[in-house]
Amino acid sequence: MEQIKDQQTMLQEALNFGKPYVRYGKPAGYIPELAKIDPNRLGVALCNLDGTMVTAGEVDTYFTMQSISKVMSLILAIAQNGYEYVFTKVGMEPTGDAFNSMVRLDQLTDNKPFNPMINAGAIAVASCIRGANLAERQQACVEFARTLTGNPEVDIDFSVFASEKATGYRNRAMINLMKSNGIIDGEPEEHLDLYFSICSISCTCKDLAYFGAVLANNGVDPRSGKELIPLRVVKLARSLMVTCGMYDYSGEFAATVGMPSKSGVGGGILSAPIGKCGIGVYGPALDVKGNSVGGLKILEYLANEMQLHMF
Amino acid sequence: MEQIKDQQTMLQEALNFGKPYVRYGKPAGYIPELAKIDPNRLGVALCNLDGTMVTAGEVDTYFTMQSISKVMSLILAIAQNGYEYVFTKVGMEPTGDAFNSMVRLDQLTDNKPFNPMINAGAIAVASCIRGANLAERQQACVEFARTLTGNPEVDIDFSVFASEKATGYRNRAMINLMKSNGIIDGEPEEHLDLYFSICSISCTCKDLAYFGAVLANNGVDPRSGKELIPLRVVKLARSLMVTCGMYDYSGEFAATVGMPSKSGVGGGILSAPIGKCGIGVYGPALDVKGNSVGGLKILEYLANEMQLHMF
Amino acid sequence: MEQIKDQQTMLQEALNFGKPYVRYGKPAGYIPELAKIDPNRLGVALCNLDGTMVTAGEVDTYFTMQSISKVMSLILAIAQNGYEYVFTKVGMEPTGDAFNSMVRLDQLTDNKPFNPMINAGAIAVASCIRGANLAERQQACVEFARTLTGNPEVDIDFSVFASEKATGYRNRAMINLMKSNGIIDGEPEEHLDLYFSICSISCTCKDLAYFGAVLANNGVDPRSGKELIPLRVVKLARSLMVTCGMYDYSGEFAATVGMPSKSGVGGGILSAPIGKCGIGVYGPALDVKGNSVGGLKILEYLANEMQLHMF
Amino acid sequence: MEQIKDQQTMLQEALNFGKPYVRYGKPAGYIPELAKIDPNRLGVALCNLDGTMVTAGEVDTYFTMQSISKVMSLILAIAQNGYEYVFTKVGMEPTGDAFNSMVRLDQLTDNKPFNPMINAGAIAVASCIRGANLAERQQACVEFARTLTGNPEVDIDFSVFASEKATGYRNRAMINLMKSNGIIDGEPEEHLDLYFSICSISCTCKDLAYFGAVLANNGVDPRSGKELIPLRVVKLARSLMVTCGMYDYSGEFAATVGMPSKSGVGGGILSAPIGKCGIGVYGPALDVKGNSVGGLKILEYLANEMQLHMF
Repeated sequence: MEQIKDQQTMLQEALNFGKPYVRYGKPAGYIPELAKIDPNRLGVALCNLDGTMVTAGEVDTYFTMQSISKVMSLILAIAQNGYEYVFTKVGMEPTGDAFNSMVRLDQLTDNKPFNPMINAGAIAVASCIRGANLAERQQACVEFARTLTGNPEVDIDFSVFASEKATGYRNRAMINLMKSNGIIDGEPEEHLDLYFSICSISCTCKDLAYFGAVLANNGVDPRSGKELIPLRVVKLARSLMVTCGMYDYSGEFAATVGMPSKSGVGGGILSAPIGKCGIGVYGPALDVKGNSVGGLKILEYLANEMQLHMF
Repeated sequence: MEQIKDQQTMLQEALNFGKPYVRYGKPAGYIPELAKIDPNRLGVALCNLDGTMVTAGEVDTYFTMQSISKVMSLILAIAQNGYEYVFTKVGMEPTGDAFNSMVRLDQLTDNKPFNPMINAGAIAVASCIRGANLAERQQACVEFARTLTGNPEVDIDFSVFASEKATGYRNRAMINLMKSNGIIDGEPEEHLDLYFSICSISCTCKDLAYFGAVLANNGVDPRSGKELIPLRVVKLARSLMVTCGMYDYSGEFAATVGMPSKSGVGGGILSAPIGKCGIGVYGPALDVKGNSVGGLKILEYLANEMQLHMF
Repeated sequence: MEQIKDQQTMLQEALNFGKPYVRYGKPAGYIPELAKIDPNRLGVALCNLDGTMVTAGEVDTYFTMQSISKVMSLILAIAQNGYEYVFTKVGMEPTGDAFNSMVRLDQLTDNKPFNPMINAGAIAVASCIRGANLAERQQACVEFARTLTGNPEVDIDFSVFASEKATGYRNRAMINLMKSNGIIDGEPEEHLDLYFSICSISCTCKDLAYFGAVLANNGVDPRSGKELIPLRVVKLARSLMVTCGMYDYSGEFAATVGMPSKSGVGGGILSAPIGKCGIGVYGPALDVKGNSVGGLKILEYLANEMQLHMF
Repeated sequence: MEQIKDQQTMLQEALNFGKPYVRYGKPAGYIPELAKIDPNRLGVALCNLDGTMVTAGEVDTYFTMQSISKVMSLILAIAQNGYEYVFTKVGMEPTGDAFNSMVRLDQLTDNKPFNPMINAGAIAVASCIRGANLAERQQACVEFARTLTGNPEVDIDFSVFASEKATGYRNRAMINLMKSNGIIDGEPEEHLDLYFSICSISCTCKDLAYFGAVLANNGVDPRSGKELIPLRVVKLARSLMVTCGMYDYSGEFAATVGMPSKSGVGGGILSAPIGKCGIGVYGPALDVKGNSVGGLKILEYLANEMQLHMF
């Protein structure tokens, strides 16, 4: 009880600490639906490993997961196809390039995208997700998202999906180049639709915190106690979040904040300090690398105050 | 009369010189329809500036122009849009990269493809060709090809077109990347269809020789005496053929053979020694850079024997 | 007592597990002095946080630290110049490139090498190490190495140094390019000599284990209890070892082994499982990425058996 | 007589045409000795194939050849070593990169620099120039320069040489990378000294015009009638000047001006319209690609007015 009250204070302080930085960022401009969003929004939720939730700020607003969904689709693809198969399509190495860079897609000898946390890698992972057709594959992803967030309301935001599909030329370029290089089975366009659908799954800060708690809790659902993800896969996901989760800021984030985390250009960041708790932040104003500016500050504050730095 | 007889001998000698090299190459493997072709075919045609034609070997076989069409579509795009407009979409600089490289498409500050003789550049040029719909745009290209070759039988080979469209993922990647970078107006897929159609225009050695004679003759039709291409555009085309026409062998070809030329992976090469004649060669066995091995040898022989080296 | 006995067994088993893999690697060929070394050597040492040491195999043989020294020189450079100054010269981001790649040195807008664990970054760090002349700077590094390893015998192997200096053209290219790009103060050649000297510091497995124990113990000397490295710098070093420490195998190593580690082409690997112990392995047979093949297997075994995986 | 008077008028007009553009450029900043030079200087000389010389503007000022010397050193290296040997060290392909780019030096499979007209390629060529020691090798170059320019006063400007040597870190990086990649025999530093010496050979506009006339005249000295360069080598040099002579402006220069030319960051440009004349221009104000802005305009004017465009 006491503990939870302390967390409440800390979250409020973290929110206050992050607030002034919001004005240094701006929403993702390249997806029209995201560009419209109020950049001043800011919220943080923390889910303890017993499932209790503490929040501060705007935590009930839905936003799209964007790249945060890459963690989830990787876990699902492994569940459906096995670890070994998925890593014939994608590597595990961080890259200092921007999340949407194509430069090295065409330079590697084996042509595999570097890791599942960048766009090209996540597209390759999405191509592995099974189902008889697009609708079934979308449904599998939505259901898995509901399970991991503990929220049955989580769903695809079809207006964001339509916006991404209409303007996602760079992602379309990536999947066609990977198709040309033998990485993609089947027709690119359906896989790309699935990828855009996954990116457009909409949730709240609290949902991210819950998902984070599952990861921090070694894959076990904090409320039901059920194993949602095998331990080996949780360890893989957490390590990839550390080495590759924050775009080309991952190295500095590991050094200075030190929590397995994944950010998305929708403004969310999912953090999973191992054995501690899950954290979700939301702040759509982004820095040049695509990370929520307010969110980064909130996480930095919490890492320091709650001793969550793992290194 | 005497002159033409001498040319006949020289062409036969050139053909004999080129023949043994054919076995060192193989047809383009990445377009299924091309992979089926007999690699031993070889032919050469020479069109004098008075329109007289001399030939040796397999000169009546139709094959697809492939990259040779890049010269033609550039001229048509300039005719329709003006020189300045077209070069807002593409540069004029040679590049040491392979014809289908994507690496530098995403590195340049202005994002323009390097030149109209590589795939990316020719796709950008094709996007400028006008018409109410795909059929009209295809028709404009076919008619221009008939004019430049003097052959009303020249047409799109729709089985090759279908083969390219079905497997052209790398070209699809390129146009989508260029679309993302602001180079392409309108929807990529129709432009790509037009590009594949242009590549699939089918002609003979003799047609290439005639087209070469138009270029060598400063844009004037050898038979009718009509100006088909303005002099400024002919000069541009001839210079780009020298600096960029033979893929990443252009520099060495200029040094050793020294004729404005453009090759295609269909096995054809178009040469236009300025003020001399037009030459078309055909030999579908290609070297690793995508140039006809027999064709290169024939041109080397003719350049030496007929003193066609321009440097 | 019981505990130490168990560790002894485990180390022996790990050594046995790693032994058969040795034949799949070979010593670094590009430094003549290293190429001569017997590739069958293999040893492992573990230093507990109370300073007790357990060993198996060839643990008294001296070998050069090579890239392992990058951790040490980074710590020393920060001690002498402050954290902020050093990171004006080098970044913190992992890169999927090989340790000696130059490609991206010349592409970045700020021209800083990506991180201190690759050659270019470590050269930039070495240029920050202070002293009136080369001898004084070498001495400072040797003394720091003695402190961190607890071994006063640790010293520069001048025959390896001479071998590296005579053949280190690629490193010389790197420092001159960085000099040209404004990253290096002063004359390149002395900095390069210092860099080669640091790489040539010679130690044993046990020395690496001790150094690892200092890092695992939050910078505190296991025997004297003295703080040798400030906590902030230890955290930085450990995070960089995770994200960048194993060349372009770092991501997969983090996922599968999960210990902050740094390898060197001399065949050593330093591991520092946080709060657990320090580990040093030695096996000069390297894989294509430059990591000790036997050493990797030993660490994999210990990570599993002793539950040292941090993710 | 009449003809020469016309040329005089044309040169004066060309000079007047070029003059206003000078203010859009500035002298090369990265070589301290060049940065000091008055950017308003402008001159042009034309040497007919009978050796007669016409000039306008500042034609007696000495300036360093810089990259123009790359044509000369290539010819000398071939004379000493044969065509085949030299092209084991360097390719013949144009590249769209800047003259001092290193990016692709480390990406090619065979590691050869692309062509002899960019810095890396010219350094590789310089490494082939023979002599018992640096002084002898410098002397061989100076004497060859005197022969080709017809001016016994031509010599190395040792203050520019010292300035280049003291600041040429990027060139030093290049030669060390090529040494590491097996392209360079012997020790890099002497070859680099020779390269800087060759770049620092000092001449006038008139000397460039004379050198151009030798090239335009198929290698035959316009005054003595002696063959100075074999025809095959002249053809090679002229073709490389067209495809690679004007840095990453070569393609556009070929299209718009159409004369074999080579520029240098000292502000000179050498042109050799084949069978017509030699032209030398001097104007130290450079554009961003390193070409003399006034010089380009003068050549453009002359190409149009005197019909020197070869395409």
